[in-house]
Amino acid sequence: MSNQLSCGQWRNGSFEWPVRVYIEDVDAGGIVYHANHLKYAERARTELLAAGGMRHAELMQQGGMIVVGRLSIEYSRPLKLEEELLVKTCVLEMGTASAKLEQLIEKDGQMAARLEVGLVYLGTNGRPARWPEAVKAALASR
Amino acid sequence: MSNQLSCGQWRNGSFEWPVRVYIEDVDAGGIVYHANHLKYAERARTELLAAGGMRHAELMQQGGMIVVGRLSIEYSRPLKLEEELLVKTCVLEMGTASAKLEQLIEKDGQMAARLEVGLVYLGTNGRPARWPEAVKAALASR
Amino acid sequence: MSNQLSCGQWRNGSFEWPVRVYIEDVDAGGIVYHANHLKYAERARTELLAAGGMRHAELMQQGGMIVVGRLSIEYSRPLKLEEELLVKTCVLEMGTASAKLEQLIEKDGQMAARLEVGLVYLGTNGRPARWPEAVKAALASR
Amino acid sequence: MSNQLSCGQWRNGSFEWPVRVYIEDVDAGGIVYHANHLKYAERARTELLAAGGMRHAELMQQGGMIVVGRLSIEYSRPLKLEEELLVKTCVLEMGTASAKLEQLIEKDGQMAARLEVGLVYLGTNGRPARWPEAVKAALASR
Repeated sequence: MSNQLSCGQWRNGSFEWPVRVYIEDVDAGGIVYHANHLKYAERARTELLAAGGMRHAELMQQGGMIVVGRLSIEYSRPLKLEEELLVKTCVLEMGTASAKLEQLIEKDGQMAARLEVGLVYLGTNGRPARWPEAVKAALASR
Repeated sequence: MSNQLSCGQWRNGSFEWPVRVYIEDVDAGGIVYHANHLKYAERARTELLAAGGMRHAELMQQGGMIVVGRLSIEYSRPLKLEEELLVKTCVLEMGTASAKLEQLIEKDGQMAARLEVGLVYLGTNGRPARWPEAVKAALASR
Repeated sequence: MSNQLSCGQWRNGSFEWPVRVYIEDVDAGGIVYHANHLKYAERARTELLAAGGMRHAELMQQGGMIVVGRLSIEYSRPLKLEEELLVKTCVLEMGTASAKLEQLIEKDGQMAARLEVGLVYLGTNGRPARWPEAVKAALASR
Repeated sequence: MSNQLSCGQWRNGSFEWPVRVYIEDVDAGGIVYHANHLKYAERARTELLAAGGMRHAELMQQGGMIVVGRLSIEYSRPLKLEEELLVKTCVLEMGTASAKLEQLIEKDGQMAARLEVGLVYLGTNGRPARWPEAVKAALASR
């Protein structure tokens, strides 16, 4: 059973990570290709973990893996070449082996996309397993 | 107001497009990086349009653009290097300027991911506009 | 010491693989982003091996890996959205643990890019090792 | 005719830009996919221009475009997940409508890849054209 943590108005708890839009990200319409928002969000999650002292690379050396189980995204403003973005991440729910995060991609202080990301922790046997304490602590700090 | 079309059990209406997993698609866990499923789905949508006689490239030359307004995806099985996948696409709803599609990514006849994709048509002024007849016809054939 | 095989005018020996340009591939200039040509070339190399009965996935399960040691590319024509391309691959040289390939990306029968790709085989210890016979045979057939 | 500028031992002239390796960049071998080094190099070129007061986005609004005409790369060390890299960029030659850059990707002070990148400036008619003064100044500062 998951333990709801309030995210609310991002009063304090969100982790912020800046991202710049490069040519690799932009498609023929001159805007960021819709799958690349997911990359920005993942960079921010990786840095959130790192800020909490936990690295994916270490986790994988130990045989564990954090995977995305489900994800939804709403695109409200196009992102353009060389814009400077801010990704805000907040943990909505922490479960035993899963978590639900909210992530906002903002430009100029306005929301450009909003994601809900369901993460699952897979243990050494490739099955959902209890979060390692270090990961849980890193996530729960947000 | 949108006009519900039944998708049901993919009895007939779905458009099928094969995709092979290459090294470019796979991440350090040995499975397809979660954002790349969106690329596979987009290839299938592009080919669905093409099968209906409509090309993105032409559309863009006329100043129009189909964008993804929202998207949700559930990942149920990992996709691995060099697997042969099948993307099934079905139109759930056709609106005046929007559409909602269901897309399944299958391997070996089993569902590996399921997407719901909300598309919006943007006219020459960059605002939602009535679907061009050719696009509507191409989509509605599914 | 490497054993020069003649590639010449692609009279016969080249392996041909078709590629379609999708939205994911194209950048803000409306043309394929320059790094994506490398992906097309890799897909063709993967399929060349597969045509010779050898799969990367198997190779990696056995602990081996084919890596790109060096690469050069000349871009002579832009590739555009939804164009249908042909990648031609030919083995210029086969060494003990390395190989040199020529790859042409063509559209409408005209060369759009030309690559020279130096491959190295890494064995289970991560160091250059003698090509497995199956890989050598697959490559040498071109 | 191009005007050779000395790059030498990167005594002073190189532009340095840090890059972190994320999951999106890494392939099934656990190392950065070989085409992604080109993305890192492009980010560094974009930031070099920006540091000199010039933005791609502006350039494109004016109808110009900087394209890669040729590129060669040697890979000497694998790049791994979450490593912190440094991209060093130096202008080897400035021509009327072209330039040749050297770019090094370093980790822990050791070279992991070396690129030579030939750039061409395309004017509003899509043909090679004289560098705009602002771009030339931004490049020539390195």
